[in-house]
Amino acid sequence: MTAAAPPSLLERARSGDRRALGRVLSVVENEEPGAAEILRETYAQAGRAVVIGITGPPGGGKSTLVSRLVGAYREDGSRVAVVAVDPSSPFTGGAILGDRVRMQQRALDDGVFIRSMASRGHAGGLSRTTARVVTVLDALGTAVVIVETVGVGQEEVDVVRVADTVVLVMVPGLGDDIQAIKAGVLEIADVLVVNKADRPGADDAARDLAQMLTLGKGRTPWKPPIVRTSATTGEGLQDLVAAIARHRAWAAESGEHDRRRAGAARAEVEAVLREALVRRLADRIGRDRLERVVERVARREVDPYAAVDELLAE
Amino acid sequence: MTAAAPPSLLERARSGDRRALGRVLSVVENEEPGAAEILRETYAQAGRAVVIGITGPPGGGKSTLVSRLVGAYREDGSRVAVVAVDPSSPFTGGAILGDRVRMQQRALDDGVFIRSMASRGHAGGLSRTTARVVTVLDALGTAVVIVETVGVGQEEVDVVRVADTVVLVMVPGLGDDIQAIKAGVLEIADVLVVNKADRPGADDAARDLAQMLTLGKGRTPWKPPIVRTSATTGEGLQDLVAAIARHRAWAAESGEHDRRRAGAARAEVEAVLREALVRRLADRIGRDRLERVVERVARREVDPYAAVDELLAE
Repeated sequence: MTAAAPPSLLERARSGDRRALGRVLSVVENEEPGAAEILRETYAQAGRAVVIGITGPPGGGKSTLVSRLVGAYREDGSRVAVVAVDPSSPFTGGAILGDRVRMQQRALDDGVFIRSMASRGHAGGLSRTTARVVTVLDALGTAVVIVETVGVGQEEVDVVRVADTVVLVMVPGLGDDIQAIKAGVLEIADVLVVNKADRPGADDAARDLAQMLTLGKGRTPWKPPIVRTSATTGEGLQDLVAAIARHRAWAAESGEHDRRRAGAARAEVEAVLREALVRRLADRIGRDRLERVVERVARREVDPYAAVDELLAE
Repeated sequence: MTAAAPPSLLERARSGDRRALGRVLSVVENEEPGAAEILRETYAQAGRAVVIGITGPPGGGKSTLVSRLVGAYREDGSRVAVVAVDPSSPFTGGAILGDRVRMQQRALDDGVFIRSMASRGHAGGLSRTTARVVTVLDALGTAVVIVETVGVGQEEVDVVRVADTVVLVMVPGLGDDIQAIKAGVLEIADVLVVNKADRPGADDAARDLAQMLTLGKGRTPWKPPIVRTSATTGEGLQDLVAAIARHRAWAAESGEHDRRRAGAARAEVEAVLREALVRRLADRIGRDRLERVVERVARREVDPYAAVDELLAE
C-alpha cells in the first residue's frame, strides 16, 4: 500500500462528507484564510444547481413550505441544501419548537444539507456572503439550493436575488402593516404563493396580489403565477414545483437566466476589486496612518472627502 | 441697492427654506453632481444634533410614537426632522390611511421636516446614504433628528446605528415569529419601549424583555430601561423622553457617544475611499475593459479573483 496524500477538505466535501462541507462553508462565510482559494477552485464548477429563493414576511409558514420542497426535490435522490438567512426561521434557531423539530427530521437525511447564515458581521455584506456560500454548494455537487430569507428588509431582498427563481410567500390576513411590505418585494418575485390557503381571506389575498400584478409594470414578459398552498397538509405543493420549473424553463429560453447570472458576476467582480484595492492601499499607507485620519474625521477637523484626497495624494 | 449674488441652495436651506433643504437632500441621496461638495461643506458643522433611532417590527405603532416625540421636542421651538426608512411607515406612504393623515398634520408645522428615504437603489448602501442625510440635516440647523426604521432586516439594523440613542419599540402579543426577530436588534437598543401597554400581555412582554436583558451580556455598563407607552393616548411619553435624555447624558460622560461617532467616521472614510479607488481604476482601465472581464466571469471562463488579479496587473 503506497502512502497517498490525504484528500483535501474540498475533495472530502465534494464526495459527500458533510462535516468537511460545513467546514469549507465556514471558511468562506467568515473569510478565514483560504477563503479566496476555495472560491477560486470552485467558481468554474458552479452554475449547474437550481437555486430557489423563498421570501416573505415572518409568520407565513415559509419554513414548513421549504421543508416540503426539500422532500419533493429529494425524491429523485438529488442532493438538496437549505441556506437560511431568516432570523425567524427554525433553520436558524428561531420560530416555535414544533417547526424546529420538523426541520431536524429533514436534517437527519444524508442528502440534505442545512446551513444557517449568521445574520450579522459580514464585512462585505450578507448578500455577497450568501452568494459565495451558494456558489460553493453548487460547485460541490448540490443539485438544488433553497435560500430562505425574510422578505422585509433591503439586505434580505438583495440576498434572495442570488436565486434563479424567487418565490414570495404571503398569507391571508396579516393586516395592513405587513401587507405594505409586499410592495417592495413583489417586483422581484417570480412565483407568488398564498400559503395557509384554507384560512379565511385566502381569496381576497390572491385577488389583491393579482391586482397588484396588473398595476405593476413587469421588467420582463413573465407573469408571476399565483399558487395556493397549505404547507401543513402539502396541498398545492406539486403546483408550486411545477410553477418553479416553468419559470426556470422560461428564464433559460428568454435569456433572463443569463442576465441574472451576469448581474451576479458583475457584483462579485466589483466586490473583489474593492477589497483588493482597499487592501493594497492600506498596506501601502499603513493601518496607523489610516487610523489617525479616521480620528481627525471623527473630531470633524477634516471632512471624509478631504481626508481621502489627502490619503490618495501621498 | 447693489446686486448681491443669489444665496446658494445651502444658504437657503440653512435659513429654513424647506424646498431648498429638500433639494439639497435629494442631491445627497441620489448622489447627483454636487453631492460631494455639499458633504464637504456641511461635515464640519454637523455633530450638534440629537439623533434618535426608532426601530421595531411593523405593527408596533412606531410612527404614532414618532409623531408624539416630534410634538415633545417641538415644544421649545427646536427644528425637528424625521427620516423614515421604514416601508410600512405612514411617513413613507405605507400603513393605513388614519396614520398617514395624522403625519400630514405634523408636516404642516414649519419647524418639522419629514424625509422619506427610498428603500432601494442606494449604490453605497442604505445605511451610508441615511448617515449622510442625517449629517446634512444636522449641519443645517436641525436640533433633533429622528430616524425611523423597521427593525427586522440587517440593513435596517445598520441604518439605525447612525443614532446616538436607539429606541426599540415592541408590542405585546405579536406572536413567536415576530418575537424571534428581537434577538438580533435587542443588542443595539439603548431604550426599550413596550407600546400599546394597555393591551393584554403587556406585563408578559415587559418581563420577557427584562429577562432577555439579564441573559445578554451588554457591550457597555448601560442597562436599557424598559418604558411603557401608549402612543395613541400619549401615556408614558414623558418617561420615554426622560429615558432618552438619561442615555444621552450617560453616553456623553462615559465616552460611548464619542466611540459611536468615531465608528461612523471610520465607516464613512472607508466608503469614500472605496468609491475613489474604484473610480480611479475604472478611469484608468476603462469601462469597456471592465465589462469584458465581467462577461468572462459570468460565463465562468475565469473566476472573480483571477479576473481582478488580471485587471490590477495591467
